[in-house]
Amino acid sequence: MRVIVLGADGYLGWPTALHLSATGHDVIAADSLIRRRWDTLCGTESLVPIAGMKRRVLRWKEVSGKQIAWERLDLMSLADTTALIAQYQPDAVVHFAEQRSAPYSMISAAHAAETQVNNVIGTLNLLFALRESGPDCHLVKLGTMGEYGTPNIDIEEGFIEVEHNGRKDRLPYPKQAGSFYHLSKVHDSNNIMFTCRAWGLRATDLNQGVVYGSGTPETDLHSDLRTRFDYDDIWGTALNRFCAQAAHGHPLTVYGSGGQTRGFLDIRDTVRCVELAILNPPIAGEFRVFNQFTEQFSVNQLADRVRAARRAHGLETVIEHITNPRTEMEAHYYNAKHQHLLDLGLVPHALEDSLIDTVVKVVERYKGRIKPELLVPRVDWRFGGGGNISAPSKRRRVPAVRSVSPLY
Amino acid sequence: MRVIVLGADGYLGWPTALHLSATGHDVIAADSLIRRRWDTLCGTESLVPIAGMKRRVLRWKEVSGKQIAWERLDLMSLADTTALIAQYQPDAVVHFAEQRSAPYSMISAAHAAETQVNNVIGTLNLLFALRESGPDCHLVKLGTMGEYGTPNIDIEEGFIEVEHNGRKDRLPYPKQAGSFYHLSKVHDSNNIMFTCRAWGLRATDLNQGVVYGSGTPETDLHSDLRTRFDYDDIWGTALNRFCAQAAHGHPLTVYGSGGQTRGFLDIRDTVRCVELAILNPPIAGEFRVFNQFTEQFSVNQLADRVRAARRAHGLETVIEHITNPRTEMEAHYYNAKHQHLLDLGLVPHALEDSLIDTVVKVVERYKGRIKPELLVPRVDWRFGGGGNISAPSKRRRVPAVRSVSPLY
Repeated sequence: MRVIVLGADGYLGWPTALHLSATGHDVIAADSLIRRRWDTLCGTESLVPIAGMKRRVLRWKEVSGKQIAWERLDLMSLADTTALIAQYQPDAVVHFAEQRSAPYSMISAAHAAETQVNNVIGTLNLLFALRESGPDCHLVKLGTMGEYGTPNIDIEEGFIEVEHNGRKDRLPYPKQAGSFYHLSKVHDSNNIMFTCRAWGLRATDLNQGVVYGSGTPETDLHSDLRTRFDYDDIWGTALNRFCAQAAHGHPLTVYGSGGQTRGFLDIRDTVRCVELAILNPPIAGEFRVFNQFTEQFSVNQLADRVRAARRAHGLETVIEHITNPRTEMEAHYYNAKHQHLLDLGLVPHALEDSLIDTVVKVVERYKGRIKPELLVPRVDWRFGGGGNISAPSKRRRVPAVRSVSPLY
Repeated sequence: MRVIVLGADGYLGWPTALHLSATGHDVIAADSLIRRRWDTLCGTESLVPIAGMKRRVLRWKEVSGKQIAWERLDLMSLADTTALIAQYQPDAVVHFAEQRSAPYSMISAAHAAETQVNNVIGTLNLLFALRESGPDCHLVKLGTMGEYGTPNIDIEEGFIEVEHNGRKDRLPYPKQAGSFYHLSKVHDSNNIMFTCRAWGLRATDLNQGVVYGSGTPETDLHSDLRTRFDYDDIWGTALNRFCAQAAHGHPLTVYGSGGQTRGFLDIRDTVRCVELAILNPPIAGEFRVFNQFTEQFSVNQLADRVRAARRAHGLETVIEHITNPRTEMEAHYYNAKHQHLLDLGLVPHALEDSLIDTVVKVVERYKGRIKPELLVPRVDWRFGGGGNISAPSKRRRVPAVRSVSPLY
């Protein structure tokens, strides 16, 4: 199949592009490269040095013999997005191209607005581009398990059968997102669902859990093929952050009491899940939701797993509970379904000590690049971010449109 | 109480400002005046001539002896919005200041993006302004019954008790909005709900039905105090549009089979509902939702009511079913609760022939101003709008923010 991967410069976008290319798909990798700019603004940087996109696709060609087309594209341009779809006529578009940090979205009003405009309008432009140039194309959109929040009932996959006052309906599962970033994904889901109904588009919303791991078989083939590894307070996710702290000899910093429970998955399962979605497209007009994670852990359980894996090597790790910078429940019911991708053939990688060892080993190789001040949170959900984080760029705006004279 | 009315130049904002002033509140009327510009872009115009805001508040002072402060304000400016809240320290802010036309939002990608950016970011800025300068202020936000769509179960007021697999929770009522405009209100509701939880703000979301009527006792006091009356395809709502068609001798154009059922209310009830919400504020951290309508009608029932009211004067009216420009169910279950405002003391105006007579009489006075080409829909939900509607202004953008140098 011909697949465009949007956000192909990111932690997951790049391994996904490689995996799809390795498994025989015709891949177009697109990205605005804004993530590298956000790193500059936040004082953050991938722990693992990463090559530029041109070098990556050249190296991939050399290593695998396979061609990935590289296109620089900003979804904030409707014209460019429509042209890309028209040019390649893809069977599927995988959409990772969003601002994906919850803390970033909570820094200030400007960061909240930037996140919601970038994500919501970028996705809107993509939807209009598909209506115009690729109405049969399958949109595979990355959502997040964080859209659901922590309800006191089982979390279903996107929809729930509700019986109420003697009547029944299958309704969108209620959303209770916990940051302006997570909210932007809820907004996206609602917009996409509407266009499937109104325009007959077909879409899969992958509500993904927290991803861990430092790479995939393809990214491990050459240093130029590595994907980014974020360990910091803005972009780093729980397990990767803990591994970095452990390797650095820093206490594992658990936010609050640590009872927060979420769905997690290995980066090698992310790329496989996306492929399974692509191989099994929905029908025209269908909006379906897959919960994309493999195991549930509380933050305490994760920290314990890292400590145990270190202890197996005779190393002691301290776990420290710090004031929770987020507003979230720290003790709650959590049981989220994730059957659809298993039904399509996903064989999950369970979290094992060997994976933690691998990640710690990667971190140790680049230990000298760790900035210890990034191992503790700078952004508070109630008051916003530290003064050392820059304001969003003014460069990118809502797409301007040629003005037409009114007839009346 | 001191109340800021945002969107005070609009159909409902202005009568609300007058009503609150008449009932003894200290009112600040604010608006960007963009609605008048959108009229120019769409080739539309209020059927009833309306005075400018300065003239309106001067006339109100003369007629009532009461002072309404007038402030030109664009919510897209975070700085201006924060300054307004800081300056007036209001007890409540009533937020009507949004792009409120579903057809407008469906014209093109640019109109969809403009609607969602204007509404979502304007509201986000207001939320940040309240956190900064008015954390105890009560936000009274105008939502819409259209956020719920047409589920096959009873529509509750914002939240629903769900029992699922033996467990229970009170969850946000699932939303299935039917246009990019309605979706923008869903996005707003989700953002506001989050800030009540995370920041302790207090808010009332008024999910309003379709409003009809040409004025209130206050707007009827002087020609300079009249509010706008929209009869056209972009801004006109069902009953007002039918009255205009009847007065013009045009068939009443019912979209599709006409079984679409919605909640409706008299403009005199709108202003009273807003006052009731203000007089009974929620506690800090509470996000509550009131369904703000008084009666349910199908489009066919509305058309029949207008025809019957005309027939009582010996006048015959033709009802014509035209192809539905919207994608919506035309036969469906609809039973929406609206108890909260009744509990607070609302005494509804039922739709009566005399009200229809009054509206038709208003239209007849300005019959010469009707543009017949605006009595039929120009915007289709599937394909967008007619080429004669102008693109959104490029003037208004996401708020730019002073750039700070990164420390790292």
